[in-house]
Amino acid sequence: SVAFAEARSIEEEQMLTECPASLLREGENVQWDNPSTSSMRARFETMIRKAQDDICAAVEAVDGSKFHEDSWIRPGGGGGISRVLQDGNVWEKAGVNVSVVYGTMPPEAYRAATGGSSDNKTALDKAGRIPFFAAGVSSVMHPKNPFAPTVHFNYRYFETDAPRDVAGAPKAWWFGGGTDLTPSYIFEEDATHFHQVQKQACDKHDLAFYPKFKQWCDDYFLIKHRGERRGLGGIFFDDLNDRDPEVLLAFSSECANSVIPAYIPLIEKRKDTHFSPEHKDWQQLRRGRYVEFNLVYDRGTTFGLKTGGRIESILMSLPLTARWEYDHQPEEGTEEWKLLEACRNPKSWVPAS
Amino acid sequence: SVAFAEARSIEEEQMLTECPASLLREGENVQWDNPSTSSMRARFETMIRKAQDDICAAVEAVDGSKFHEDSWIRPGGGGGISRVLQDGNVWEKAGVNVSVVYGTMPPEAYRAATGGSSDNKTALDKAGRIPFFAAGVSSVMHPKNPFAPTVHFNYRYFETDAPRDVAGAPKAWWFGGGTDLTPSYIFEEDATHFHQVQKQACDKHDLAFYPKFKQWCDDYFLIKHRGERRGLGGIFFDDLNDRDPEVLLAFSSECANSVIPAYIPLIEKRKDTHFSPEHKDWQQLRRGRYVEFNLVYDRGTTFGLKTGGRIESILMSLPLTARWEYDHQPEEGTEEWKLLEACRNPKSWVPAS
Repeated sequence: SVAFAEARSIEEEQMLTECPASLLREGENVQWDNPSTSSMRARFETMIRKAQDDICAAVEAVDGSKFHEDSWIRPGGGGGISRVLQDGNVWEKAGVNVSVVYGTMPPEAYRAATGGSSDNKTALDKAGRIPFFAAGVSSVMHPKNPFAPTVHFNYRYFETDAPRDVAGAPKAWWFGGGTDLTPSYIFEEDATHFHQVQKQACDKHDLAFYPKFKQWCDDYFLIKHRGERRGLGGIFFDDLNDRDPEVLLAFSSECANSVIPAYIPLIEKRKDTHFSPEHKDWQQLRRGRYVEFNLVYDRGTTFGLKTGGRIESILMSLPLTARWEYDHQPEEGTEEWKLLEACRNPKSWVPAS
Repeated sequence: SVAFAEARSIEEEQMLTECPASLLREGENVQWDNPSTSSMRARFETMIRKAQDDICAAVEAVDGSKFHEDSWIRPGGGGGISRVLQDGNVWEKAGVNVSVVYGTMPPEAYRAATGGSSDNKTALDKAGRIPFFAAGVSSVMHPKNPFAPTVHFNYRYFETDAPRDVAGAPKAWWFGGGTDLTPSYIFEEDATHFHQVQKQACDKHDLAFYPKFKQWCDDYFLIKHRGERRGLGGIFFDDLNDRDPEVLLAFSSECANSVIPAYIPLIEKRKDTHFSPEHKDWQQLRRGRYVEFNLVYDRGTTFGLKTGGRIESILMSLPLTARWEYDHQPEEGTEEWKLLEACRNPKSWVPAS
């Protein structure tokens, strides 16, 4: 989303000693006793916090070690809860963040996000920066074993105020997110399982979702300067506001709930596979590519770095270790070459419905 | 330089089996028998190729292993010579690149580079993309020993054509470059020696250069999202065209010639220092910061990735290995903390003249 360009958050964070009940500003309609009457902001926060709890519990159960938690809040509202499991038994580094940001964005970002007509372009450009609200859960988990894949997911909700002094300009909102898989070696059955679970989640809401969001994912996770994708994709969507927000909340929840069944079985199958130092080196080179994508292209990372987000939470997505060899080219026909080919030419992992 | 924004090169490269005599387009006035009458393009190429030869020879003499060389050329002129020494005895990865690029840049980049008045702004914006020539030597050398510092240097020369259809618009040219030091541990005498050599090179040409370019270096190599510099600085300058180009060529040559006396003695002193796994981990974390700066902020890297430069040559600047630990904070008063403090608050390493 272009909304990420030049977005800014407003205040410095303060670390907390305990996890707060809510990261929202006071009075933003959290009806703990009757959640369905709560604001979308409140319900989205509830959803992402539950996703964080559930996924961390599933990862801890497999890894046998515990996440470390850091919480912070900004005086005027907003904040985050970062959980990281570093140098575990199964994962090299696994991070699951929840964050809520109150900030301002320039008018052109608002226009891009709302697909704005040119009618009120001049008025909008004069309106000045527009307040926004963003909440999301985001996670990257890098396992130790080179045959066990990395997963990333992120589900987020945005709202802007209506620009002041622009007659008829609407308040805007949209959903975004996705889940994608980045192995160093391909197991067809693993990729198929992962995509199948994404498709099932999509199909419950709209049969058009999976093909569209699978393609969007392949397009988004392109490391342009290399002409290769970060991994084997999954689903990705942004600026989604073309239907009832209730439906999109339900869809986002479905996707977040699908992370465990899509990913954990692959880890259980591959975490103890025997590997050589050469396998590990290849994994480390692929981790280097992960770093390239995240620092050069990823909007969430750029958004975080620019909005003065908490750096350690944003860069939790980077692997513990990575490697760059000059001009490394896997030999044709090898397992390493097959992975690279699949990153260069994304394929279809599940049959169309 | 804003000239880097949206610059594009024109053609695909072809790998060569031997190093070419020149990377310039044919007929660009190379007078091998009387170099002083050659064009600035030709003389700059001669200078950077000699710098590449000299520095590679000095590094090979210390390391005991040899650089691997790759040369390529583009059909219409331009190309490069990359030399890399990977997993040597002393250096983990050392790369020295020479490149010549013929491309086009948008008018706003030309205007920014020439400090253009607004007189012909409209005509200029209509003029379309402006052809440019860029030649440079650039190098990053990452040693293995955590007490031995990384060095980076880059010296470059730009020329643009005059924009077509813009009356009175000039052909533009400028020089840029710098040399900077990135240790993982501070030895005051090493930093002082390094800066002293930079200052001597500057002082021969203008006593105002060192203080100005030292400050520019501290400003440029800022990892904004962390509020810390990549290292201990050195000198950096860009868009330099305020005096006779002969003087600026001589100054650039002086700086390139100063890399060996500034850097090699530090390596000889530190390459065999005993170190622990903890020292190595800290070096790897600092290498992670190096990656962050280069991929997020460095103009040369961005320029290269956008102009369709040869990726392996551009990313040769990345370390062989790097590390990101969640929320790593060195304890106050430790050697690691001292380095971080110096990156946060740049100090003066040599007395003013």
